[in-house]
Order: sequence, then structure tokens, then C-alpha cells
Amino acid sequence: MDELNIGMVGYKFMGKAHSNAYRALPMFFPDRVKPTMKVICGRNEEGVSVAAKDFGWKEYTTDWKTLLSRDDIDVIDINAPSNVHKEIAVASANAGKHLYCEKPLALTLQDSRDMLAAAEQAGIKHMIGFNYRFTPAIMLAKKLIEDGRLGDIRHFRAWFLQDWLTDPHFPLAWRLQKEIAGSGAHGDLNAHLIDLAHFLVGDLKEVIGMSETFITERPLPDDTGGLSGTSKKNAATGPVTVDDAALFLARFENGAIGSFEATRFAAGHRSTNSFEINGSKGSVIFDFERMNELQVYLTDDQADVQGFRRVMATDPAHAYSDAWWPAGHPIGYEHTFTHAFVELADAIREDRQPVPNFKDGVKCQQVLEAVELSIEERRWVQISSL
Amino acid sequence: MDELNIGMVGYKFMGKAHSNAYRALPMFFPDRVKPTMKVICGRNEEGVSVAAKDFGWKEYTTDWKTLLSRDDIDVIDINAPSNVHKEIAVASANAGKHLYCEKPLALTLQDSRDMLAAAEQAGIKHMIGFNYRFTPAIMLAKKLIEDGRLGDIRHFRAWFLQDWLTDPHFPLAWRLQKEIAGSGAHGDLNAHLIDLAHFLVGDLKEVIGMSETFITERPLPDDTGGLSGTSKKNAATGPVTVDDAALFLARFENGAIGSFEATRFAAGHRSTNSFEINGSKGSVIFDFERMNELQVYLTDDQADVQGFRRVMATDPAHAYSDAWWPAGHPIGYEHTFTHAFVELADAIREDRQPVPNFKDGVKCQQVLEAVELSIEERRWVQISSL
Amino acid sequence: MDELNIGMVGYKFMGKAHSNAYRALPMFFPDRVKPTMKVICGRNEEGVSVAAKDFGWKEYTTDWKTLLSRDDIDVIDINAPSNVHKEIAVASANAGKHLYCEKPLALTLQDSRDMLAAAEQAGIKHMIGFNYRFTPAIMLAKKLIEDGRLGDIRHFRAWFLQDWLTDPHFPLAWRLQKEIAGSGAHGDLNAHLIDLAHFLVGDLKEVIGMSETFITERPLPDDTGGLSGTSKKNAATGPVTVDDAALFLARFENGAIGSFEATRFAAGHRSTNSFEINGSKGSVIFDFERMNELQVYLTDDQADVQGFRRVMATDPAHAYSDAWWPAGHPIGYEHTFTHAFVELADAIREDRQPVPNFKDGVKCQQVLEAVELSIEERRWVQISSL
Amino acid sequence: MDELNIGMVGYKFMGKAHSNAYRALPMFFPDRVKPTMKVICGRNEEGVSVAAKDFGWKEYTTDWKTLLSRDDIDVIDINAPSNVHKEIAVASANAGKHLYCEKPLALTLQDSRDMLAAAEQAGIKHMIGFNYRFTPAIMLAKKLIEDGRLGDIRHFRAWFLQDWLTDPHFPLAWRLQKEIAGSGAHGDLNAHLIDLAHFLVGDLKEVIGMSETFITERPLPDDTGGLSGTSKKNAATGPVTVDDAALFLARFENGAIGSFEATRFAAGHRSTNSFEINGSKGSVIFDFERMNELQVYLTDDQADVQGFRRVMATDPAHAYSDAWWPAGHPIGYEHTFTHAFVELADAIREDRQPVPNFKDGVKCQQVLEAVELSIEERRWVQISSL
Repeated sequence: MDELNIGMVGYKFMGKAHSNAYRALPMFFPDRVKPTMKVICGRNEEGVSVAAKDFGWKEYTTDWKTLLSRDDIDVIDINAPSNVHKEIAVASANAGKHLYCEKPLALTLQDSRDMLAAAEQAGIKHMIGFNYRFTPAIMLAKKLIEDGRLGDIRHFRAWFLQDWLTDPHFPLAWRLQKEIAGSGAHGDLNAHLIDLAHFLVGDLKEVIGMSETFITERPLPDDTGGLSGTSKKNAATGPVTVDDAALFLARFENGAIGSFEATRFAAGHRSTNSFEINGSKGSVIFDFERMNELQVYLTDDQADVQGFRRVMATDPAHAYSDAWWPAGHPIGYEHTFTHAFVELADAIREDRQPVPNFKDGVKCQQVLEAVELSIEERRWVQISSL
Repeated sequence: MDELNIGMVGYKFMGKAHSNAYRALPMFFPDRVKPTMKVICGRNEEGVSVAAKDFGWKEYTTDWKTLLSRDDIDVIDINAPSNVHKEIAVASANAGKHLYCEKPLALTLQDSRDMLAAAEQAGIKHMIGFNYRFTPAIMLAKKLIEDGRLGDIRHFRAWFLQDWLTDPHFPLAWRLQKEIAGSGAHGDLNAHLIDLAHFLVGDLKEVIGMSETFITERPLPDDTGGLSGTSKKNAATGPVTVDDAALFLARFENGAIGSFEATRFAAGHRSTNSFEINGSKGSVIFDFERMNELQVYLTDDQADVQGFRRVMATDPAHAYSDAWWPAGHPIGYEHTFTHAFVELADAIREDRQPVPNFKDGVKCQQVLEAVELSIEERRWVQISSL
Repeated sequence: MDELNIGMVGYKFMGKAHSNAYRALPMFFPDRVKPTMKVICGRNEEGVSVAAKDFGWKEYTTDWKTLLSRDDIDVIDINAPSNVHKEIAVASANAGKHLYCEKPLALTLQDSRDMLAAAEQAGIKHMIGFNYRFTPAIMLAKKLIEDGRLGDIRHFRAWFLQDWLTDPHFPLAWRLQKEIAGSGAHGDLNAHLIDLAHFLVGDLKEVIGMSETFITERPLPDDTGGLSGTSKKNAATGPVTVDDAALFLARFENGAIGSFEATRFAAGHRSTNSFEINGSKGSVIFDFERMNELQVYLTDDQADVQGFRRVMATDPAHAYSDAWWPAGHPIGYEHTFTHAFVELADAIREDRQPVPNFKDGVKCQQVLEAVELSIEERRWVQISSL
Repeated sequence: MDELNIGMVGYKFMGKAHSNAYRALPMFFPDRVKPTMKVICGRNEEGVSVAAKDFGWKEYTTDWKTLLSRDDIDVIDINAPSNVHKEIAVASANAGKHLYCEKPLALTLQDSRDMLAAAEQAGIKHMIGFNYRFTPAIMLAKKLIEDGRLGDIRHFRAWFLQDWLTDPHFPLAWRLQKEIAGSGAHGDLNAHLIDLAHFLVGDLKEVIGMSETFITERPLPDDTGGLSGTSKKNAATGPVTVDDAALFLARFENGAIGSFEATRFAAGHRSTNSFEINGSKGSVIFDFERMNELQVYLTDDQADVQGFRRVMATDPAHAYSDAWWPAGHPIGYEHTFTHAFVELADAIREDRQPVPNFKDGVKCQQVLEAVELSIEERRWVQISSL
């Protein structure tokens, strides 16, 4: 197979990130299967036609179902709103298309399980867009752990801090409405932390959480597009129905313990996606705002020069780095998507499931719901009980 | 009053820290009441006599009770082991002596309440050694919050990370035995975080915690002195009966939410005593390893230059700083004790209770026990229920 | 004008960086003139044909002269080796083509002046590839200075530290041979610092420098391609004829003073391209390894919260940032090229010279040669004397 | 010898720093010879009598000459103004007293040589107050270099940045008057950097410098005491006769190259005393504002975890650290003086010259004057020519 024909559903923020990654892949990974940007799909014809031209897609359509019967489409890339993921994914799987689906897989654990079942029954390849895994510095953390260089893992602590809701005048955007968004900081931000915990440390065993909505009424927005929004002066207000912040404690199956925090009220943190892992032989610290760096501590360093090393994960020794620029030259957020598509392309060529796939999406959803249940019932919840 | 005559019970690590602070006070705060280092007390005559000479005390004794009847003793400073705090404090209060007691006030909430009651009944001044409050950078955080410059507080997250137990060959020191130490990382490290939470944010309302002992058997030590210890090869082992790590989530009375973590298994962290506070108008971040610095973010900075400021709290504008060295010159751990004694001296001269005092010690103990109960019963515990 | 037809000469490292930037431009700056990747040119047919396919060019050629007579080429992008810049640029200008030329403009000041003269006589637009100017954090520094928010500039200190020559076994690559590379760290790295000094502070008045070659003999390489290279064991050696490090002091026309350092022997620095500027009202610090950040200090901050702010230049208030990802999401090295091409496209559409242009290239070359003269003659050299 | 009887001349800023260090020494280094604070000397009786009481000296005098004939004085500590160092030092040496003299040794190279000659002729011990050497993190840098763990040293770059003159209203204090202070930032700040260069890298061979006075007229002060000062509105002005900033390039005898910068106009830097050293096998970076830390890079770290380590020099493996607090607990500026006095006491007991001594003071003065000459004559100056 030389090319991978893509049909993509969704053309907003994530559609742009995906398009850019497909475009960059053959230039920087020329020995990989080349993705062909065949058809982009969106409900609004004006919007999707402009996106097709700007992003470089050959065709566009307003009906994703037309993609299913085309022989020249190998992969359906779903980055439409979360509430339509299931319908598109199940139909695509049934049509024999490989799938790349943005996180969250679905709005409920049951839906995500249905999607996994459909994908497995159809025998297609399925991948989920936990793109942060593909940050070279995080790949380095993974390698250190897998090689046993951090020893037995004892602690995972992670925090995803944003501040865009600090302002009480910020309007009641769709992300603040439970019926559309499912949850607030929890589903949006903790989902990423949970996936990294699964990736780096292993399965969770039990959780207990808490959440808070600091500002319960907000002005109604003028529009609901994009990530932000504006509101008129003296606008009417409506209730915020999702969490502003969600924290939880956890125990892993392997005996490690963890703490997780997601908030949109941490003034000064535009998007601090950070974790620390402590093992019996070393530790790592990561912060996505400095995504090219991993701080690494190793207990067997000489006694007088022990300390966290600031490793720039841009050396030839680091994953993906030889594809990009010379050592010491930063890459950015978007490169994580390119790396994810390299995995997708490789998995299809090698006839294996890509990682992370829908199983990882289900597992993440399971923890998210366990935490929600623990908040509602104010008790520890076993992951296996869901 | 020109001088404050001190009788000190305890002469090990904390005795040295206190002695050094008493010594430095008149040199750097010459307009304050001068502490006179009258008598140092310890059970081991050889040890205490050497300490008296090295630290600069005029006399020593092996019987603390002799201090109570002396007219030339104004303050009893208790930094003997925690399990004797209560007896000494109650007797000293009854004898009309002012008290400075190291944390924890006592090993149980009930004992600490008894101590507070004795102190109040005697009408003496009582202070507890939560010395971290007196770090100039933390005083700056307090000032910013009190002046409303951080707005309404939403988040408090704190972590006290150490790594001295990472090595499984580290022996079963007294700090790892529940009957002597009371608890492990929880009582030792979370106590400081809880006091800072009280100081900076306010009273806690409810908590839920978890704890873990990662290494449950350790070699018996050759000796039990000091903070560390050694063990022979093939030494017999004994059970670790305290927690290696303790985490909890919390809700404050004022609506803020918090997360706390204490561990002795965070490889690479010798003593990372750190917190972050997020308010509606700004944030602060502190790490005791860089104790001269406070990171400060203010939401009303101009749009293009918003970011955390690294403030060196050594300018004349910062608490205590004009007593020490020119701006930009670091002070260290020991200075926090000197500042604490300035507060003690001022309070006695001004005939008011020093802050923090035994009430703060009781409140801290109350939270510690609430967390322990929440761990034992795996449920949220209201602070007011204890 | 809707499209800008590009003919590019060069297809290695810089050719890839430029191609990637051309491809990204219409996706992220859809309202700008769209560059069309018409023809890529290189001497090696096999190499250039692969590059054409991987990078996405419509055609390729092995003879750059064929580009000059084509009506469907608007701009010649020169990123071939420096020693052929002049010939291609002058011929292209004479043919009426706009020019984008990588730095250094030429190997000598005289050649660069000839190129500028040819470009001015032909009346074409000419731009030089000082891409670092287009880092959003550096654009912020520029804005702060232009708005007077740093006051009068007193100090500029800059250092570009690399470490790829620290290993004595690193072979005698072409970059270490004077006849090919012109100079070593000086022309390669100081050139960037000098341009940033011109951009941010202003013209230099006089300089005095020093340079050093720490390792004077190196093993002959197996090949001379790419940035690095390898050598066989017991390989014959040859003399290093360029500087390993070059430092100089400088005085600016406006009274500021500066220090510059370039080295390839700073172990641990893969590519630390950094500067600090101190003015009467504030300071900024930049490091390209953390290219999304600018540290900013303002003297009129309140007395108790003065300190360097870590500004993530990814907010909507920062140059180019709304074209990319949400606030707090890093961009990388390659984005600086996209921004440079935005300037090129805008300048052509607006019928003005882009900035930086060949004048800036000449000025940079003038300072580089003045420093070289100052090293040779061990004396201060006036820039205006060259 | 059990005690070392000190007579100290000077009682202001440095007198306080020294007194504090003498008092701390027996508490933290109980096995060392104990300094006895015998007599403090100053011209102003009121001032020196208060200092004697506050700092803890047994006696005071207004005539330093009375110290010379007393048998109960072993060491004369000179921290009076620099212009009287020579007279006191020579007379004290002739009287057979050991000497501890603050930097600079004298205002001229000739005077410093006279002082060294007198000390050598008298056969006394002589030490100079380059206290920064005794920072544990700098001692670690020294150890790494001496043990060959950084390999051959190639680069030394150092900068001492302050900002107290940024404000044009700051008055014409004595430090800005050449007849009193000798020079400005150069003698005050570069002196420290030069000594660290000597200590860590070795002797300098040649230098070339530049200096600048940015603000040439300042308001006359109300008083000239202390480090700062104030001036009345509309005060008359006078000329600043010293440098505000001084930079120089240097070549070391061992082939390393160096750059030095001292300024009082670096807004945001209260007192950034910093250096970086690059060797063939590693690098170190130090900043006194974070004096407990040394950043260390070692080239033989594994390929995927190479990076600067942030070493807290507070472990038992670090110099002096076991005398103070547990690992991870910061010490401050003042501790460097205590360590210096430990060296003085040890040298006297062991009957050897302390390090650094007057020879180091002379060497520093020699470089300072060579730089001044290079600035005046705008040419490279050989150190050995002075």
C-alpha cells in the first residue's frame, strides 16, 4: 500500500489540526505511507468548501454517509462534535472503513463500548486521538519506564490547568452546557490526564473525586462558535451546568497512587498540561507549555551531582526527532498529530491495531464515569464496577 | 521589658535551630526585646552540656521541672519529642510561663485541646512553631491575599515531597514507628501544608484522604538518633507502621477547594514544600527550595505582558527583608525561626497572643485527625465533627 | 494578485524548511496571497526529484537559469550554498524576479553590496532569511521597545551557544573549512545575533572581538553532507581553518553597549540562541530553546511584586498567534519561516520592500567583517570604516 | 590553640556580616577553633558602641592602633573603607597580627603589593574576603573541575548584574565618586567575577575592556551613609565619576577564553552574580540569586537523558552542608562568611596560609588595573605587563 485515502468528518479547530498533520507527514516522514487528503465533510457547505480549499482537500461533501460507499476512502477521520461520534463510527466500521476518532470516543461509557464492539466485529483498525502521547518528551518518559530506568512507580500526579473561565463575564458557551458538552473540565481535561496515566503507569483500580462550579450563572453568548465567545453588556444570564474544576485521588492496579486535577480557573495558566511520576529509581516531570523538555531524575547518579536534568527531547536519541529539525530546535503542538498519523499509517501497513485505540478510549471513559459516580455518591468507586 | 529570659527543653535539631535564631535576633532586630538564652534542658547530661556550650546557653539542666519555679525564666520553649509536649506545656502554663511549642502541638487532638485550655486558663502567651509562615515570600502571598489583590480564592494545591525513604535499605528509624511518631508523612509534612492553608486561605470544611505504605518491612537500625540512620547488612527487619505518603482533597469554608500531598517517596525531591493558590484576580506559586522567591500572576496586567512574575522577596518592600542583606541576597531556612521569635517577642511586649498560637495548633491537629478518619472509614469527614 | 509563484533554488535542510512554510501559509493565513510551489531546483537530479515529490513542488529542474525566463515565476527563493548566492541573486534581479535569499547574503561584504545594488537597480522586492525576527516572543520584545515600554536601551547581551564540536572525534566537515564556509561560529551564529541587535536596538558603531579554534586538527570525514558527519577510526586528519568560538564587545550608535558570543563548544547547549536587553524602564530575556516565552521586567510594577514575568507569547495579543493554536499551545522553529513568508507576500502585494531585506543583509555582513578585522588587527574597528 | 581572639576594624554592613559569622561558627562547626569576639573598632564612638552591643563584642574602641599592642588579639579583621585598608594591614602585620581583609585589598595594585610584601615579611597568615568562593554550589564547581569531570575548560562567561542605578533620581552616593570608590561596577562587581575566574579556571593572560557611564549627572545626596541614599527634590547635581558598567574579554593562560560583565543598570536584576563554565566533558552554571543550586551537564550521560541537572548543593556530599540543615533546606548569603572563617581558623591551626589570601587579592587587582588600562588605551593588555 502506498497511499492512505482519508475522508474526514469535521472541519473546525481539530479539522485544521488534522489537515495540517496529514499535509506535513509525507514531507517529514517520506518513507511512510502517504495520506491522501481526499474528502472533507461538514454540514455547512459554505464553511466546509472554504476549509477544503484552505486546508488542501481534493473534495468536500456535506453528507458523511456518502463516504461510506466509496472505494477510494480507506480511513474515516472523525473530529465532528462528540455527540455524533458514535453514529458515524459505527456506520463507518460497518462499511469496513478504518477509523481515527477524536477524544472523547463518546459521551457515555456505554456508547464508547458500542463503538469498540462495532469496530472489533468489523475487523477494522481503530485509533483514538490521544495526541499528547506522541510528544517526544512523553515518549521518552514512556521509554524510561518501560526500560525499568525509573524502577517501580509509586506516584503519578497530574494537573491540567487553564484560566479562560476566571473572568465572570465570559459567556455561557456550549462547553459550559451539560447537554452538549457532557461535562466541563473533567471530560475535557482529565480525559487527557487519565489517558497519560494509562499509557505511562497502567490501569486504575479505584477513585474518589470532587468537583466545583465556581460561577453558576453567566451571560448568554452572542454566538456559540469556536472555543471562546463574547456576550453583550447587560446580557441575560443562564446557568452553568458543568464543572469548572474536577479533582480526584486514585489507586492503580500496580500499587501506585495518583492525584488528578483539572480546572479552568487557574489564573495565569493558559494550558498547563503537566504530570510528575516518581519511581523507586527515578522521576520525571513534564509540562506541555515546555513540551520539548522532560525533567529526569535518576537515583543512581553520583552523590554530588544528583538533580533533575532538563532534557530537550530533540536529540537524535529521541522519538521522531530526526524527522524534524536539528537538536535544540523546538517543535510545537501540531506535531503531536503528525506523529499520531505516523502510528496510524504504520499500523495499517503492518496489519496491527494502532495504539491508542478504541480500547483506550473505553478505558478512559470508564474512569471518567467512575469519578463522576464517586462525586455524586461521595464514595470511593472501583473502576471494575462499571 | 528589655529582655526575655528563655528556658528551652530540647537540644537536638530543633534546639539548634531555635538557639541560632535567639542568637541572631538582637543582631538583626536590635529594636526588639532581646531573648536571653538562660537555660537549656535535656535528659542526657553529656549531650545537653555540650549543646549548652556550642549553642551559647548560660546554664543547662537535666530536669525541666526546675525551670518552672525560677523567676528568671519568662518563656519555656518546648522542642523535645512530641510525646512529652503536653506534660511540659501544661505544667509550664500552670506555672505562669509563656510558651513556644514546636509542632505538632501534641500527638492527639484531645491532648492539643487540653494544652490550649491550660494555656488559656493560665492567661499566658502561647505560640506554635509553624515557622514556614515567616518566610518573607509566604508573607508576601499573605499580604496579596489580605489586600484582595488575588481576588476570591478558588484553588489551593500543596505538596510536600521528600525522597529519603526511596531506598528500601533505609532502616526502620523511629519516624517509621507509629507508637513514637504518631504518623508518617501525614503528621510530619501535611501538618505544615494544613497550617499554610489555614494561614493563607482559611478554615477547612471537609476532607477525604488516602495513604500508602510502599515498603512495609525495613531493616532494623543500628541506632535511632537524628533524622536518618544506618543498618547492618543482613539486619533483621521490622514492620513499618506509619504512612509513606498521604494525600487528601478538601473543601474550604469559603468555597475554595484544595488538594494536599505529602510523601517521602518522591525521588529527586529532597524537601519540596510547595503550594499554588489561584484566585479570581491572580495566582501565587511557592517552593521552599527557592524560598526567597514567590511567583505572582495578576489578571489585570496588560494583555501582551501577562505572565507569572518571579519576585525575589528580598526587597525593602518585603517583610523582614530590611533586617537582613541587600536586595537580591538570599536568606535561608533558619531565618524563619528568627522571624517567629520576633513575633513572640512583639506579642509579649504588646500583651497580645502571638500568631500562630495553640489555637492554630489545635486546628491543624483537627484536620490531621479528620483526614486519618476519612482514610480509615473511606468517606468524607466534616472538620466540625471532630 | 492572488498567487505568488515560487521558484526555489536549494532542496536540503533550508529547502525543506521553506517548502514546509509555503505549504502551511494558506492553511493558517488564508487571507494572504497564496504561494504556489512551482519549481524546485538542484544540481543533483535524483536528489531534487525526490525532494520535489516529498516537499510538494509541481516541477523540478537542475538548471536554475531556466527559471529566469519563465513568466510563471514571481519569486526566486535562494537557499543553495552561500558561495552561489550572488550569482543567482544578481541574475534573478536582472530578470526582474523578486528575491528571498537565505542568510548570509554572501561570503563577503563587497558581494553583498553588489547584490543589494543589483536588486535596487532592478526595482524588485528583496528579502533576507533572518527568520528569528519572526518569533512571536521576539516580535513582542520589538513592540515593547518601539512603544517605549523599556525606555532607553542600555545593554544588549547575546549568546548563541552550541556544542556539536565538543567531541574531538567529530570530523572535519565542510563547515570547518574556511574556503567553503567563510568562517565558523562567527558567520554562522553571530550573524543571527547581529541581525537581532539591529532589529531590536539599532545600528552598531564600533566593535572589538576575539576568536579561538580549540581543536585545530580533526579526522577527515567520510562524507560532507548534512549538518553533521562521521569519520572512520584512525582516519587521516586535516586542519580546522575556521573559528570554534567568536566573541565581541560593541557600542551602538544610540549609546547602548553590547556583548556577543558565538561558540560550538558549550557542552550542554544544543542551540541556545539567547539575548537580554536592559532599558531604563524594563528588560527582556529570550532563549530560542523556549521560543514561546519572553521574560519581561517593568520598573513601574508595584514595589512588592517586581520581578521578571514569564510571558507565553501565544495569547491573541501576540503577533501571529491567532493564526495558530489556542493560548498556551507551543509553536516551533518552522513557524518562523511561515511568518517570514507572510511578510514577503504582504510586501509584494502592498508594493513595499519587505523587512528584513538586502540592506539588513549588507549591514550584518559589514559588522561581521568589522569584527573579523578587529580580531586580525587586535584593535577597535568603526563600522562606518568598512 | 582553642580560641582565636578577633579585633575587628569596621562596624557597618560588612562588620555586621562578619560578626554574625563569628557568632555562628562555634554553633555549627563546634570542632573548629572558636573565634572570640574581643574588640570592635570604629571612629564614631556612638556608632561603634551600639554595634558592639548589638553584634555581641566584648569591648569597643575608636582607635584601631590600640589593638596592635594587645597580646589578647590574634587576628585583625579589616572591613573599614577600602582607602584605609593598607595602613591598617601593614601596621597590623608589622605587629605580628594575622589578617583578614575585605576585598578590595587596596585601591591600587601597588598598594596591594605593598600589603602582601608586609604580610609575607611578617610571616603572618593573611586572608582576603572573597566570600563567594565558599558557597557550597561554587565549591562543587571547583571540585568537578579539579577532579577533571568537566575536562579541559574552554569557556568562562560571567556577569554580575545589578539595577540600583537605573533610576536617574538615585543620588550621587560615595560609590559614584572616583576619589572615594576607586571605580564603579568594575571594582565592585568585576572583582568578584575575576576572583572566581582565578579560583575555578586559572590565571588570565590578556584582556580588553570597555566601560560606560550612562547617567553622568546625579542629584547630590542628603547623606552618604549605607549602600543607598536619598536626595531632595530639585537638589543640585554633581558629576558621576565612575563607570556604570564595565565589560571585558579575556584569554586565560590555559587556553580558555572568557567574557566578563558588570553593570548597575540591568533592570530587574537586584544582584545576579552568575557564571557559566564549559569544558570538554561538561558544563556548570551558577547564579547567586539561587545560590543553593548548581546546574551541571556531563557529556557522558546516556544519549537520551542528557541535560543540565539542577543540583541542590545541600546534600551530605556537598561542602559544609552537613554543618547546617537537612538536604533541600536553603542557606543564605551570610553563610559564605562563616565558611570563610572556618578556612581562616583551620589555616591558623594548621600553620598554613589560608586560601584565598593576599596573593589572590593582588592578582585580582592586577587584572582590574589591566582592564582599566585596556579601556583607557583601547587596546589589549597583557596581565604580566603590570
